[in-house]
Amino acid sequence: MKKAIGIDLGGTTIKGTIMSEDGVCEHTTRVPTEAQAGGQRVLENILSLIDQLISKSGLQPSDFVGVGFGTPGFVDSDGTILGGAENLPGWKGTQVYAPIKERFGLKALGANDVTAVALAELKYGAGKGVNNIVCFALGTGVGGGIVTDGKLYKGTHGMAGEVGHIVVETDGIQCACGQKGCVERYASATGIVQMALEFSKYATGYEITPFVTAVRSFPDKITSKVVYEYVAAGDAVALKVHHKACDMLGRAVGVLINTLSPDRVVLGGGVMMAGNIIIETVSHYAKKHCWPAIFERCEIVAAELSEDAGVIGAASLALE
Amino acid sequence: MKKAIGIDLGGTTIKGTIMSEDGVCEHTTRVPTEAQAGGQRVLENILSLIDQLISKSGLQPSDFVGVGFGTPGFVDSDGTILGGAENLPGWKGTQVYAPIKERFGLKALGANDVTAVALAELKYGAGKGVNNIVCFALGTGVGGGIVTDGKLYKGTHGMAGEVGHIVVETDGIQCACGQKGCVERYASATGIVQMALEFSKYATGYEITPFVTAVRSFPDKITSKVVYEYVAAGDAVALKVHHKACDMLGRAVGVLINTLSPDRVVLGGGVMMAGNIIIETVSHYAKKHCWPAIFERCEIVAAELSEDAGVIGAASLALE
Repeated sequence: MKKAIGIDLGGTTIKGTIMSEDGVCEHTTRVPTEAQAGGQRVLENILSLIDQLISKSGLQPSDFVGVGFGTPGFVDSDGTILGGAENLPGWKGTQVYAPIKERFGLKALGANDVTAVALAELKYGAGKGVNNIVCFALGTGVGGGIVTDGKLYKGTHGMAGEVGHIVVETDGIQCACGQKGCVERYASATGIVQMALEFSKYATGYEITPFVTAVRSFPDKITSKVVYEYVAAGDAVALKVHHKACDMLGRAVGVLINTLSPDRVVLGGGVMMAGNIIIETVSHYAKKHCWPAIFERCEIVAAELSEDAGVIGAASLALE
Repeated sequence: MKKAIGIDLGGTTIKGTIMSEDGVCEHTTRVPTEAQAGGQRVLENILSLIDQLISKSGLQPSDFVGVGFGTPGFVDSDGTILGGAENLPGWKGTQVYAPIKERFGLKALGANDVTAVALAELKYGAGKGVNNIVCFALGTGVGGGIVTDGKLYKGTHGMAGEVGHIVVETDGIQCACGQKGCVERYASATGIVQMALEFSKYATGYEITPFVTAVRSFPDKITSKVVYEYVAAGDAVALKVHHKACDMLGRAVGVLINTLSPDRVVLGGGVMMAGNIIIETVSHYAKKHCWPAIFERCEIVAAELSEDAGVIGAASLALE
């Protein structure tokens, strides 16, 4: 069975695995990213991790079909990091494919980390058995990935899938990207917390719910998880935050369903720990932004893969 | 050189051609659609047109690789019309592939008519030489087509590309599809005329420009062409209509550039007879809705193919 090496580059940790075609991961290993030491150090750490993985496996480099990696930001078709990875200073401009080829004789293939997760979900998770999916990862930001006709769609410059910056509210909340009203400002963990703070600030009278009191007392302790604990308890203001997040996400989901007519939209990332209530509410709002005939042919589902999705997707890139 | 038959089904006319791989069309022929006589009559007219084309060419059916056709609405993967073709009563539910196969022994492949135009632009027009494009056709409505990795993207159910119903204004103008603020309400010929009527109705004082006077005097004579004659003359209210149309279209273009990172966005259809001013103004607004690194890697250009784009795209479907 064909095997590939998968590398998931994060701001603090680089995770690597050896994956067979059936999706089974072995020898999963983590090393520190040492992001502050610059792009060359990050690259050396990746090469050293590949070395470790090959040693642990007892195999030769030639036993692998290649190395796949997921990275924050964008990778050009020749393997140069194009930017969009602000938490990795000096990573932009680093050439990744050539050193891997030189040191191990292996072809490398990289993609945005969330795009890689979309591929993992397609092959081994919530997208299994269909050909066209769109993934939204609701984490600190909102990332995404698009699979068309069974293959990861990266665009000519490896930049496709920036679904977090779909504008969903005219003159909405200012986003760091320069636009106003990006879906990321509402449906990411950060966006949910910001809305919680905002709604609590202006609450008066009967709107001063237990949730508002908690937010006002411990503003630094509010996370999307806390918001969804109050949603589960039926708190009116927490529900208002939830509905705003899902309305805005539903608009972006609706735009992409209408445009791409995927079989499934997969919602993943930390925010989705809140579970089914997000799927249901996003479906409710997305339906309002779609042609009925297209909407009824698309399922909105939760991601299935856990924390290994990053390395599975990375290895899948090499196996494609 | 391989040859295919291309059929472009319209509300009043069915147009057919014989196209070689190099994009050269021969024996182009038109027959009436007879839409009001129902779906079976439309199908018979298509079969009879194919018959005529083969006769005119002096070739045998087996000399062709197949028949491609573009139709309003959607075509399922087995060749059944799924709806979305309101101007062709009874066309929904018609099975098209089987009768073509039966009568001529040729495989057939259908797509939405505007989606087929996108393919034509990719192969022989403004998209030549690149792999990823998005087309907007600005006509009575706004249609579209998406090409990913050099192939027409139709989605699992043949419904992808409904770019006209991307919502670009929160609580905007009511659309027939049920949504509010669809880009079609602003950037189609119909939308432009509606905005001209609306803006003229409420104009007072210095806003009563020559354009407003013309609209008020001959409301039935206003077309998008007339609006753009006044835009060329620098009329303030006509320019306001133009900017609103391009702002809204720019938002939809921006969403798709951000999401799909295409090499080119191609704008075509009757409204584009106004020419370069639309490209420039849409680019101005689209830029505000994109990540700069993605935007600068995408060109926004005018469609190059003329009225033959429909049959060229249809024939290209069969040649793919």
